[in-house]
Amino acid sequence: MYSHILLIDCEDQKGLVYAVTKTLFEHGVNVIRNGEFVDHTTSRFFMRTEFAGAFDSGKLLGDLRKALPSEANIHLIGRRKKNIVIMATKEHHCLGDLLVRHTFNDINANIQAVISNHEVLRNFTERAGIAFHYISHENLAREDHETKVREILDQYNPEYVVLAKYMRILSPSFINAYKNKIINIHHSFLPAFIGANPYRQAYERGVKIIGATAHFVTENLDQGPIIAQNVIPVDHNFSGEDMATAGRDVEKIVLSQALKLVFEEKVLVTGNKTIIFD
Amino acid sequence: MYSHILLIDCEDQKGLVYAVTKTLFEHGVNVIRNGEFVDHTTSRFFMRTEFAGAFDSGKLLGDLRKALPSEANIHLIGRRKKNIVIMATKEHHCLGDLLVRHTFNDINANIQAVISNHEVLRNFTERAGIAFHYISHENLAREDHETKVREILDQYNPEYVVLAKYMRILSPSFINAYKNKIINIHHSFLPAFIGANPYRQAYERGVKIIGATAHFVTENLDQGPIIAQNVIPVDHNFSGEDMATAGRDVEKIVLSQALKLVFEEKVLVTGNKTIIFD
Amino acid sequence: MYSHILLIDCEDQKGLVYAVTKTLFEHGVNVIRNGEFVDHTTSRFFMRTEFAGAFDSGKLLGDLRKALPSEANIHLIGRRKKNIVIMATKEHHCLGDLLVRHTFNDINANIQAVISNHEVLRNFTERAGIAFHYISHENLAREDHETKVREILDQYNPEYVVLAKYMRILSPSFINAYKNKIINIHHSFLPAFIGANPYRQAYERGVKIIGATAHFVTENLDQGPIIAQNVIPVDHNFSGEDMATAGRDVEKIVLSQALKLVFEEKVLVTGNKTIIFD
Amino acid sequence: MYSHILLIDCEDQKGLVYAVTKTLFEHGVNVIRNGEFVDHTTSRFFMRTEFAGAFDSGKLLGDLRKALPSEANIHLIGRRKKNIVIMATKEHHCLGDLLVRHTFNDINANIQAVISNHEVLRNFTERAGIAFHYISHENLAREDHETKVREILDQYNPEYVVLAKYMRILSPSFINAYKNKIINIHHSFLPAFIGANPYRQAYERGVKIIGATAHFVTENLDQGPIIAQNVIPVDHNFSGEDMATAGRDVEKIVLSQALKLVFEEKVLVTGNKTIIFD
Repeated sequence: MYSHILLIDCEDQKGLVYAVTKTLFEHGVNVIRNGEFVDHTTSRFFMRTEFAGAFDSGKLLGDLRKALPSEANIHLIGRRKKNIVIMATKEHHCLGDLLVRHTFNDINANIQAVISNHEVLRNFTERAGIAFHYISHENLAREDHETKVREILDQYNPEYVVLAKYMRILSPSFINAYKNKIINIHHSFLPAFIGANPYRQAYERGVKIIGATAHFVTENLDQGPIIAQNVIPVDHNFSGEDMATAGRDVEKIVLSQALKLVFEEKVLVTGNKTIIFD
Repeated sequence: MYSHILLIDCEDQKGLVYAVTKTLFEHGVNVIRNGEFVDHTTSRFFMRTEFAGAFDSGKLLGDLRKALPSEANIHLIGRRKKNIVIMATKEHHCLGDLLVRHTFNDINANIQAVISNHEVLRNFTERAGIAFHYISHENLAREDHETKVREILDQYNPEYVVLAKYMRILSPSFINAYKNKIINIHHSFLPAFIGANPYRQAYERGVKIIGATAHFVTENLDQGPIIAQNVIPVDHNFSGEDMATAGRDVEKIVLSQALKLVFEEKVLVTGNKTIIFD
Repeated sequence: MYSHILLIDCEDQKGLVYAVTKTLFEHGVNVIRNGEFVDHTTSRFFMRTEFAGAFDSGKLLGDLRKALPSEANIHLIGRRKKNIVIMATKEHHCLGDLLVRHTFNDINANIQAVISNHEVLRNFTERAGIAFHYISHENLAREDHETKVREILDQYNPEYVVLAKYMRILSPSFINAYKNKIINIHHSFLPAFIGANPYRQAYERGVKIIGATAHFVTENLDQGPIIAQNVIPVDHNFSGEDMATAGRDVEKIVLSQALKLVFEEKVLVTGNKTIIFD
Repeated sequence: MYSHILLIDCEDQKGLVYAVTKTLFEHGVNVIRNGEFVDHTTSRFFMRTEFAGAFDSGKLLGDLRKALPSEANIHLIGRRKKNIVIMATKEHHCLGDLLVRHTFNDINANIQAVISNHEVLRNFTERAGIAFHYISHENLAREDHETKVREILDQYNPEYVVLAKYMRILSPSFINAYKNKIINIHHSFLPAFIGANPYRQAYERGVKIIGATAHFVTENLDQGPIIAQNVIPVDHNFSGEDMATAGRDVEKIVLSQALKLVFEEKVLVTGNKTIIFD
């Protein structure tokens, strides 16, 4: 079992794997698993290493910095649960799945709290032993509502904010405050439907597949780096509501899969996409 | 084994299945398989019946017309292969799959000819024993090129025109001349990418799934009623070209599945969607 | 929205749909949705009809019996939630999914109680407001343990018993007491692995897909009529434990899908298979 | 674009990636892509490296042997098409797919010949420009038939033998002569069905999914290391023959996917499983 994960990205050049593995070897640690990827369109190198052993982390980081290009991003992360806050509105399917996993320790995270702009999920959340914060958006300007939300978030200082069907649009300033730290799940269609009531549009178009996409949130709404996607078949017997019901099952599974990848430090973001070492 | 298929659609009202099955019963035919669907958003009734037996088709149709609302669409179709013409450009994967099936009689159609705006698929087509018509679009206005294509098509008078990666946009007048008779296959993404080189865009967005959609062609390009869809998983190791390669496999299978459904008269079009009795 | 469901199966003969729809028409009910299927290998006819309206159910059943072969099975079922008891052992994933759905009313059933041969799921069950019965199997012969379980079951008189990862083998007498009423979920592999620790065997064989099958329980363990199946891809990076973890996600979704079909009376059993009108 | 692939497997120990990448660095080659895997249940290390550049292959291999444990398997393979012979019986779907790909250069192989125990695929094969050898098994003992087949095979000396629905069982001596070089495709079910006519058994059991498995052939029939698998959904409307038809589509795609992986040297065999660097 690994004790630490090393994440590196830098401009590609000859000998990078050699340089990293040499440094790790010289520090006497035991590499459990290694993954590398070169994006040949951008000439960027990515590496993720799981290792274990006794070492001096300051010295290891120093030696890695010497061995790698000066612009390299180097992250050394101890194995531990991530602290997260979940934001939700009224739908329970994603929150429910995460709370069950949390109860039985099969999500690699500590859910610190749930924040919602409605009260409907309070009892369900609290009986799982998780704090629930209701922050109504009624009669509040967007920035004022977000200020209140951020006050709560900042109390917890979470490593990730999970939007488990949080149905309000976040402002750029909110998003930038948690860059690459907000994960969202949304329904997806082939083709995509813009505007209100996508399930009704999907029904009217007679789509044969509906899906879900989990992604990091960027300023371009629903356009951030994709972490996980999946689909299920539907047919003309599905009403719009049936499609939404079926969609919820795929949403909750895709969100959980994405979070598992992120919390195990298997996801690197580059440009508007992800490199996933799974 | 059925000898005939009856397709009906009309405004929904009480007793329609009763009316149809009574009429078939009185004509002494043997119903092999029956499917019905009511679209409750439009109150429209759809029915597909496979049956066998000796009957007077004029009299049966007359009795059905009496038994059903006057606006009902009633189609009585004998079991037989469909005559089709395939249009292609340079890519071979969909055409190749259809020609192999045709050679071994496992597509319910008679391929009358292949029309292409390039020569590259000629040898491949002809050695399968199928006529190949090269109609270059160079130095021709769109309508002039289409006129030449339609001259060939009209010689064959096909029941369906299959666009097996035909890369030119068809004009509305072309499409209307073959309403609900042109079937297209195109790649599909979650989300959809507009504009040139979608596989490059998919690569840059880091999509985890790519797919294909087979649909009837309507004036709204790529927006016609969907017949079949499928997807395959991809990851960051796929270059744009790898994604295109993987996409071709799903395109050819989805197109064949869609054609099988259409040629067996299992697909009814209503509004901008399909009802599929599979 | 339908108020009743009619399920019929009988030997196939001409005019059955006509006979049924005529009878329904004469009783003035409104057919919402109809499905029929003839198994041509056994010449057996199956029909499921959703309808609504005011009618005399005794008279309708009497008229249907007159209109259909004397050996016909005819079931007229009012739309309502099913009463179910869940049996589990230690694993929480299927139970958790069902309890969340129950809490939010998106399973068409009333969970009356959970019975387990271990205590570990008690708190989790009780905080969802569901009675939990612990019946240890220790120091008990199989029949004695089952007698105790059946005493509890019989208090509730459930319409279905759901085995949500209940890890004990049920005796034929138990199974026969709830014929076609016990639904089980188990992991499935291509190929199947017999004996202990199938995930370890799957790992050692390097399978690329693992799945789950929901089925009715018959005397032939794990060999009863299949209701739903699904799979997920895995690879050599998955340890046996990783495969089991991934398998749990597919198990819980497949079980929920199967229960939805069963509780909406969409599943007819014939021989050792199911006919599903979805 | 890489010019060479290096495949290594050896007992796991500290510093292996370092040792290999150091050696490659010192030879001045350019690593394009690297994959490693440690099977922690057997403590075995696997590595696949794509690289390009000018180097002395004898010296590189010598230096790698010095740098790695003495029992290490080290393969240095130039990028080129594989020579293959296809064996088939009467079914055309897999052969057809491979011949189309071969015609258009989108399989990384040179099909040298097709060998069949029937004549039915001769014309189809020959018009694709491929030699066809008919070796009837009638009135021949198994070993005598295989001797004749091997005489043909040995003329071509293929790197892989692809069983594209070859319906005869191969003897252990045949299999051992082409160890890890024979690739087979067969249908797969959840659960597995033993004995004759598996599609009929699948129909009678009412399976909801059918699949295909591509694998290396070992003495244990159909039990060799799995390369690729996939499934498609079916339902009670599928007759046994419909299931077989649907199964053929998944068989041909899975076989092509498996061959692509093998021909690009992405598949390492260890014990009875594969490590796939895709």
